Amino acid sequence: MGHVIYTGKAKQMWSTDDPEVLRVVYLDQATALNGKKKDQIQGKGQLNNEISTLIFTYLNAKGVKTHFIKKISATEELVKKVEIIPLEAVTRNIATGHFVTRFGVEDGLVFPTPVEETYYKSDALDDPFINRSQILALGLATEDELAEIWQLSRQVNELLKALFAKAGLILVDFKLEFGRLGDGTLVLADEFSPDNCRLWDQQTRSHLDKDVYRKDLGDLTPVYAEVLHRLKKVLEG
Amino acid sequence: MGHVIYTGKAKQMWSTDDPEVLRVVYLDQATALNGKKKDQIQGKGQLNNEISTLIFTYLNAKGVKTHFIKKISATEELVKKVEIIPLEAVTRNIATGHFVTRFGVEDGLVFPTPVEETYYKSDALDDPFINRSQILALGLATEDELAEIWQLSRQVNELLKALFAKAGLILVDFKLEFGRLGDGTLVLADEFSPDNCRLWDQQTRSHLDKDVYRKDLGDLTPVYAEVLHRLKKVLEG
Repeated sequence: MGHVIYTGKAKQMWSTDDPEVLRVVYLDQATALNGKKKDQIQGKGQLNNEISTLIFTYLNAKGVKTHFIKKISATEELVKKVEIIPLEAVTRNIATGHFVTRFGVEDGLVFPTPVEETYYKSDALDDPFINRSQILALGLATEDELAEIWQLSRQVNELLKALFAKAGLILVDFKLEFGRLGDGTLVLADEFSPDNCRLWDQQTRSHLDKDVYRKDLGDLTPVYAEVLHRLKKVLEG
Repeated sequence: MGHVIYTGKAKQMWSTDDPEVLRVVYLDQATALNGKKKDQIQGKGQLNNEISTLIFTYLNAKGVKTHFIKKISATEELVKKVEIIPLEAVTRNIATGHFVTRFGVEDGLVFPTPVEETYYKSDALDDPFINRSQILALGLATEDELAEIWQLSRQVNELLKALFAKAGLILVDFKLEFGRLGDGTLVLADEFSPDNCRLWDQQTRSHLDKDVYRKDLGDLTPVYAEVLHRLKKVLEG
């Protein structure tokens, strides 16, 4: 079954017989406040694997290049091995969370154009907010890579805003990660789940994402199960 | 003598008989850590007024549009009234200070190309670091204004790196502010002094700027006087 290559906050990456393919195991773990809050939540790994599989399959079908190959069990999937670019690309359609405290705007403010933020993936540095010229000066990505990252992020935003809207959900914001395949192609990596996006119910504006855990608003699994249920209804008819 | 329009950390702005002209009074005050550290330092106002006058006169002569009109006393100058754009534009040629702790790089790292950072001028929010898309989304400046701000900042960097080099000083980093005249022209505003730039001696790498105060390295006035002395030697022969 290979060996563990990387253990993250909510996933483990394992090697496989194919050097170009990794196995992802979704864990029943939730963290917040950069790991200061941490809990085991039964069923979370399975829900995120199912949700992320639906989203990545949808994006692949729409021509977005991703690392996703296929789901192989309730909590596992196969992905193409990539060299991860050490950046988190955050897109915000609506102001909430960190943005609101940082810039003193009203929670729920709809941006005229999406806000795009990059964070430097570094546990030691607490994932600092970083801008374009800093990324270039530190050699974390090239100008071409940044252009590709944001072109892909915008495409994902347009596709998923529309998809979630059909499921009665507002895509408030989300975080993407990218990597390079062996041949140099830049692809969308990581996962897409309520762990790394915010989803609000169109009618009630209730949270259907990890804010339920961050803000202690109740049990996480029924909320994630609701997202999965609504997505399935839209995608599988 | 007009009335006080604005009291900053190290300057006061006064109205004059001419509605398009303000009088700036440089104060004998130093602050650090966003105002948490604060001291009266005799002679500082006069030194900063003299240094900033030399720099702005030099920039005006080189065709950089600024708010500066003229020095009218030891601690006072006249400037054109502007509508300040609420951004601080920081240019870094060498990594030091905040950048080093934020991104975990070596103090003294010379950047291949200058790092450009914008901060949102807001005491209430503690002047947060802000990126281009956030500035546009919050309407703090337009795309054209940002383009002008960075074009002017780069011009100032090239001119002043060369000027300070002649004075045996390395221009490590600096902060600029910009404003609009009544006719809409964007001009360089605020001041240019060792309060808002870092200068290192070419030979010894000793600090000739406000880091002497921030880091309690000794008396500030002899250091600022040394910068003034060196600049005068270069500019006045």
